[in-house]
Amino acid sequence: MPKKVDHEKRKIIIAEATWKVIAEAGIERATVRNVAEAAQLSVGSLRHYFTTQPELLRYSMQLISERVSERMANKHYTGPPLQVMQEILFEFLPFDNNRKIEMEVWLSFTARSLVDPDLMNLNRQVYHDLRQVVSTVIHSLISLQFVANDFAAEVEIERLYALIDGLAIHHILQPDSLSVDTMHAVIQHHLQTLCKQEG
Amino acid sequence: MPKKVDHEKRKIIIAEATWKVIAEAGIERATVRNVAEAAQLSVGSLRHYFTTQPELLRYSMQLISERVSERMANKHYTGPPLQVMQEILFEFLPFDNNRKIEMEVWLSFTARSLVDPDLMNLNRQVYHDLRQVVSTVIHSLISLQFVANDFAAEVEIERLYALIDGLAIHHILQPDSLSVDTMHAVIQHHLQTLCKQEG
Repeated sequence: MPKKVDHEKRKIIIAEATWKVIAEAGIERATVRNVAEAAQLSVGSLRHYFTTQPELLRYSMQLISERVSERMANKHYTGPPLQVMQEILFEFLPFDNNRKIEMEVWLSFTARSLVDPDLMNLNRQVYHDLRQVVSTVIHSLISLQFVANDFAAEVEIERLYALIDGLAIHHILQPDSLSVDTMHAVIQHHLQTLCKQEG
Repeated sequence: MPKKVDHEKRKIIIAEATWKVIAEAGIERATVRNVAEAAQLSVGSLRHYFTTQPELLRYSMQLISERVSERMANKHYTGPPLQVMQEILFEFLPFDNNRKIEMEVWLSFTARSLVDPDLMNLNRQVYHDLRQVVSTVIHSLISLQFVANDFAAEVEIERLYALIDGLAIHHILQPDSLSVDTMHAVIQHHLQTLCKQEG
């Protein structure tokens, strides 16, 4: 079905044009008209895929979350468990330019979702998916008996998840103050402090 | 100079109306016209104070940061040092409704600042002010000899600051998933883990 494939591709091109408009000019400029121009399409053919701006925004936001999940699913992790966990968590961080743009656009979507119940539902779902990855890391530390007996799993999940998102946001806002290397060093240090201090 | 005082009051009313519009409808709705309506002023009298929307946004963003600083300066902290530090850090968290709205509006400003160099400069300044408070807490732990000798101050400042902002954002996005009590428990736990494990 070559026709269907083309439609999917076209939608992705439109979503990527939406990211571009948001990253360069802000989410309030991501109108159907501006996005059509950035995607080099007519307003009419864009409306063939997305009738309204909310639909366009929802699809564009969803595509970011799919890209993140895909990258995680496709990556092969090898090495000692702590190093693997570290690399899984690094995937959440905006350490290259593509991920930085994704994160900037995601921040705009997030702010917008505060006043848009539809985007908030999607945000909630992504929040729970990402929290699930962090939860898996924390529970692996427990299964591997890397942590002390009084380890408070639930508090540690919230702590690590908040830490990751805080680092990501600080990096895109103040890359000079919080570098990629420092983000990585903080996550590495955090995982080490979670483990028993016995060598 | 009662005239001057009235002017200041009027600007604050306008800024608070701007927050209200942003919190209820999003930053893209915070036009001079909509804010004038929310402040029950004519567009003409609003323009007497703020000629352009960027000016209005900058002042409204600045007022949030001033409110936070003021609250910190006016609070009297008493008690054991760790408890005082904890309370200082709690001031950064959206634990009541006013602070929640401030934080929501701040998130919108932050997303906007990614495409507005003027707001980004203000964001940068506030970032450094808040980081300074975190830095003071970390350096107090060192001076009080609460921490081990190999304590890495710079990494710990970034870790604590990212943790606080991550918690605050997770709470305003998903209050059901991350409650006020959990935010507090995480900060308290974090401070404890920073201290030497000898008592």
